[in-house]
Amino acid sequence: MVLEKIKQENDIKKLSKAELPVLADEIRDFLIRKISVSGGHLASNLGVVELTMALHLAFDLPKDKIVWDVGHQAYTHKILTGRKAGFDELRQYGGMSGFPKRKESDCDCFDTGHSSTSISVGLGYALARQIKGEDYKVVSVIGDGALTGGMAYEALNNASRIRSNFIIVLNDNKMSISENVGGLSKHLSNLRTAESYQEIKTGVANSLSRIPIYGENIVERIRRTKSGIKQLFVPGMLFENMGILYLGPVDGHDTAAIVKVLKEASRLQGPVLVHVITKKGKGYLPAERHPARFHGTEPFDIDTGLPVKNRLKANYTDIFSTVMRKLGDRDEKVIAITAAMTDGTGLKRFHNMFPDRFFDVGIAEEHAVTFAAALAAAGLKPVVAVYSSFLQRAYDQILHDVCIQNLPVVFAIDRAGLVGSDGETHQGIFDLSYLSSIPNMTIMAPKNKWELSDMVKFAVDFPTPVAIRYPRGEAYDGLKEFRAPVEFGKSEMLYEESSIALVALGSMVKTAEEVRDELKQKGYAVTLVNMRFAKPLDTEMLEKLADTHKLVVTLEENVISGGFGEHVTEFYSQKQSEVQLINIAIGDTYVEHGNVEILRRETGIDKESIIERIFNEYINIGQVDK
Amino acid sequence: MVLEKIKQENDIKKLSKAELPVLADEIRDFLIRKISVSGGHLASNLGVVELTMALHLAFDLPKDKIVWDVGHQAYTHKILTGRKAGFDELRQYGGMSGFPKRKESDCDCFDTGHSSTSISVGLGYALARQIKGEDYKVVSVIGDGALTGGMAYEALNNASRIRSNFIIVLNDNKMSISENVGGLSKHLSNLRTAESYQEIKTGVANSLSRIPIYGENIVERIRRTKSGIKQLFVPGMLFENMGILYLGPVDGHDTAAIVKVLKEASRLQGPVLVHVITKKGKGYLPAERHPARFHGTEPFDIDTGLPVKNRLKANYTDIFSTVMRKLGDRDEKVIAITAAMTDGTGLKRFHNMFPDRFFDVGIAEEHAVTFAAALAAAGLKPVVAVYSSFLQRAYDQILHDVCIQNLPVVFAIDRAGLVGSDGETHQGIFDLSYLSSIPNMTIMAPKNKWELSDMVKFAVDFPTPVAIRYPRGEAYDGLKEFRAPVEFGKSEMLYEESSIALVALGSMVKTAEEVRDELKQKGYAVTLVNMRFAKPLDTEMLEKLADTHKLVVTLEENVISGGFGEHVTEFYSQKQSEVQLINIAIGDTYVEHGNVEILRRETGIDKESIIERIFNEYINIGQVDK
Repeated sequence: MVLEKIKQENDIKKLSKAELPVLADEIRDFLIRKISVSGGHLASNLGVVELTMALHLAFDLPKDKIVWDVGHQAYTHKILTGRKAGFDELRQYGGMSGFPKRKESDCDCFDTGHSSTSISVGLGYALARQIKGEDYKVVSVIGDGALTGGMAYEALNNASRIRSNFIIVLNDNKMSISENVGGLSKHLSNLRTAESYQEIKTGVANSLSRIPIYGENIVERIRRTKSGIKQLFVPGMLFENMGILYLGPVDGHDTAAIVKVLKEASRLQGPVLVHVITKKGKGYLPAERHPARFHGTEPFDIDTGLPVKNRLKANYTDIFSTVMRKLGDRDEKVIAITAAMTDGTGLKRFHNMFPDRFFDVGIAEEHAVTFAAALAAAGLKPVVAVYSSFLQRAYDQILHDVCIQNLPVVFAIDRAGLVGSDGETHQGIFDLSYLSSIPNMTIMAPKNKWELSDMVKFAVDFPTPVAIRYPRGEAYDGLKEFRAPVEFGKSEMLYEESSIALVALGSMVKTAEEVRDELKQKGYAVTLVNMRFAKPLDTEMLEKLADTHKLVVTLEENVISGGFGEHVTEFYSQKQSEVQLINIAIGDTYVEHGNVEILRRETGIDKESIIERIFNEYINIGQVDK
Repeated sequence: MVLEKIKQENDIKKLSKAELPVLADEIRDFLIRKISVSGGHLASNLGVVELTMALHLAFDLPKDKIVWDVGHQAYTHKILTGRKAGFDELRQYGGMSGFPKRKESDCDCFDTGHSSTSISVGLGYALARQIKGEDYKVVSVIGDGALTGGMAYEALNNASRIRSNFIIVLNDNKMSISENVGGLSKHLSNLRTAESYQEIKTGVANSLSRIPIYGENIVERIRRTKSGIKQLFVPGMLFENMGILYLGPVDGHDTAAIVKVLKEASRLQGPVLVHVITKKGKGYLPAERHPARFHGTEPFDIDTGLPVKNRLKANYTDIFSTVMRKLGDRDEKVIAITAAMTDGTGLKRFHNMFPDRFFDVGIAEEHAVTFAAALAAAGLKPVVAVYSSFLQRAYDQILHDVCIQNLPVVFAIDRAGLVGSDGETHQGIFDLSYLSSIPNMTIMAPKNKWELSDMVKFAVDFPTPVAIRYPRGEAYDGLKEFRAPVEFGKSEMLYEESSIALVALGSMVKTAEEVRDELKQKGYAVTLVNMRFAKPLDTEMLEKLADTHKLVVTLEENVISGGFGEHVTEFYSQKQSEVQLINIAIGDTYVEHGNVEILRRETGIDKESIIERIFNEYINIGQVDK
């Protein structure tokens, strides 16, 4: 095994030329084998095996800085920097992260997770190097999908000002997570085809007799020629127009070719973009054929490519998918918008049925939200389907473009709460806080699958902004017998007793039900309220509960700061209520990757922790009795 | 007066050709006269008089939609849509807004205020028109500065997909608020000069014998030619590469020429960008010479261009400016970053003294923050100086790129709290909420000018992220005698008594001092604590106050939801404290434009309102005595 020779960074440099393709094959085998067991990001990692090897051959780690945009494609980088053993506990609690982490290795110079940050980060390192008079190379590796995010452009616009070397590797696999969109995508597609060079060549008389895809001396010739002529010969005019030298395209599965262009690029002054063409899923047929399905995958059977566990129950995404199709059918004003997450948010079928009313805007949450605001202003009913942690990107657009004008945009917020193995960057545990601070916003969360459906229907016809948050994974199908019509700002009484009142939001209703069962067994009289609305609060219900109970317990899957519980506390404080109160929520901390059940326990929002708090803080000291 | 013939939209179409330049002159006179009295945005409005007239001549309002990016340049639009009388109460409480407002006029199709939203909005309207089968024109007017904002690119990337007509007018005045930066700026600058065409012309043999700046038939010829050749002749290659037809440049002070190109543009299918060159401040010499100073201006003397009132006292921006120069001098690791607000944030002198450690990144708050995070990771001490409401754009970058890695970035947040005449979009009343929700963040606010200085010094040497928020306008120079060293998480006891404890943050310490004086006169024993830290809370002090006082009053200039007061309430609730509590904060609502003193009264955070609440809610019902 060549792979066994790789114990740490730079070991790859000791290999012979002949060993490199063997290493690539072994890495692919290793990744397929490990991820088929653990789950994780597969297709993107298979696509960048040779690119990563080339980066490690061309540069010196940890001295040189490689910044991985998004970061889910850094598995080969982890292998080449001595973290092969970590794959046995990949994305497990306490185990290795699926993303670059500075605390894991010196060779990870910056943590990533969300898209389109790498050029900003690379520029920061490159300019710090300049300021401190240091000497290292900086390479940002960004996908074509990530380039559709606005902050990548903000950074490109600033990149032209750097005088010293700074390399941007454009890892172009013609897709982000699913297919890529927009003008940029078209531009890249033109660059990829030899025809475009031919077109230029035959269309115009030129002084160079041949136009090589990547030529030995082209770089210096490009530098020397005047801008007018330059634009003739350089295919990456979009980048050249922004003051960034373009090199490429180069075959992303030819290690030697990539090393060569990287070495060339690293000798130049100023910003250089190296355009590398890769194939997502390369080397594993099911992933090559269905790269979107193998983007982030559950454990699968290697031979068939099929999931090991068949999902028996619908998840919330499925429920949302179904109700959107129904609504789309019923009402021609309903529009669906996603930011590069057609599959993930469940909008594929809506897309197929109503292509004219579906918009995938690329990884562009800011645009998505303001675009939706305008659609609403023009009389339509836009639904923005988005993951909780990605919607953070559009906080200002929600506040400034949707809510000041009080426009009826619906936010369908998937992956709200703990998401598990993707970890810190992807936990959807801030949305209740950042959305609550925004005036005119209505925030809901369903207790089970039927309620999600009811809430989406309610929201689409509501005249002002509404957010509905629901978690990743299996949809709860309990509490079926409770299906009171959704009424603005009204909670739903599930079990009315006395003594202790559990006031739960969304995913926590199920947990509250379990807490109640156990407390009941111990002889306590426990009320359970499905709060439904995090904003506005059902103050009538809260007042009633305070009058008739000794202890109110709020439950939410969100950080405590600025969340649902704090608002309840504030309400009772303003009312000078003397009711006793516990707020169950996640502390003021980031939550790492791992199984959701473990994370719930670690963050104290599982059944046992809640019961413990109720006993320790109230019952055991005699403040609440049966 | 020609201007008197303009009573409402489309009246301009009744004017003769000869009257149009007269109207332009009269509008300029009117604007200079009015703004010299009221203050407001001058330079940008003087720059777009003919452009606005041309838009009103070429299109039909309110049927057609004109979207003004940022919106501070819409004064002529307001005049031409019958709102001339509104200028007597421009930006005053209850008076006309300085920005487009749908509730003011049918001719304002979307509210704006922050930068770079107009293309997203325009696309929303244009696609809604397509979906609903309606028939109107959509024009987004965006400045070259606003084009440096990422969401503008996200929208451009999506614009290429529209099949029906959609016009983007690029109002290019070579600056945003002060000088423009980056690769895009260079690209535009190349477009502006005839030389660049000449260069292309002489460098390459071409089939067109002349390259007109804007030619009769060029449009169709462009459409017909192949992409390779097209790139030779069309100067706006950056836009063409994104699939957007480029027309221009055209003289932005030649009404007839603009009307002509707009009419041409509106006959085309798909997205068209019309490049219009304007001069900021046009027609008023002091504004032409100092466009940045006349961007947003206080009342001024028309003859001299000088402010009517001389500022006698320093404002917080001045204090920040001074301390940054000192720190820059003392420590070579200190870096200053601004997003197109060099003057506004007080970094001009830092820029002059330390040009290599100063970065104006354009209107690109997202990039600014992640770039700063990388500088910090590389061992430098970056300070991001930014207005509170604009930092909303970078919520995710603070949460995801700075705070997960706990990187020592300092946020100097100017215009925090009520800003006055700019209104809803610019009030800095959300930062305590959105920053508090982020783990690892430290948030401070100074009571007076010396404390701002001390806090900046403290923050720059602190090992983790720190935000310091301070308000617009005059720096408080009272309480000079209190200058205890800044200690992490520790408040400052100013007056220690009993009965009522005022716990004030930042700008509210001054108000609390006044409240205390009045309560003292009435015979109450009043403690005053300068909280200093909104996060973490000084829980030791809070416990002590609860033990020794009957009533604790928190005071902040922020919305109540997720703000400082709610966190204090939560703390006391968790401690099962029985202390009585009032949270003085702004309600869950947007705050319109107007004089800050009026706004403080309207939002209930002025001295009188606070005293009234203390009496009504506690003293008068016997819950607190002397």
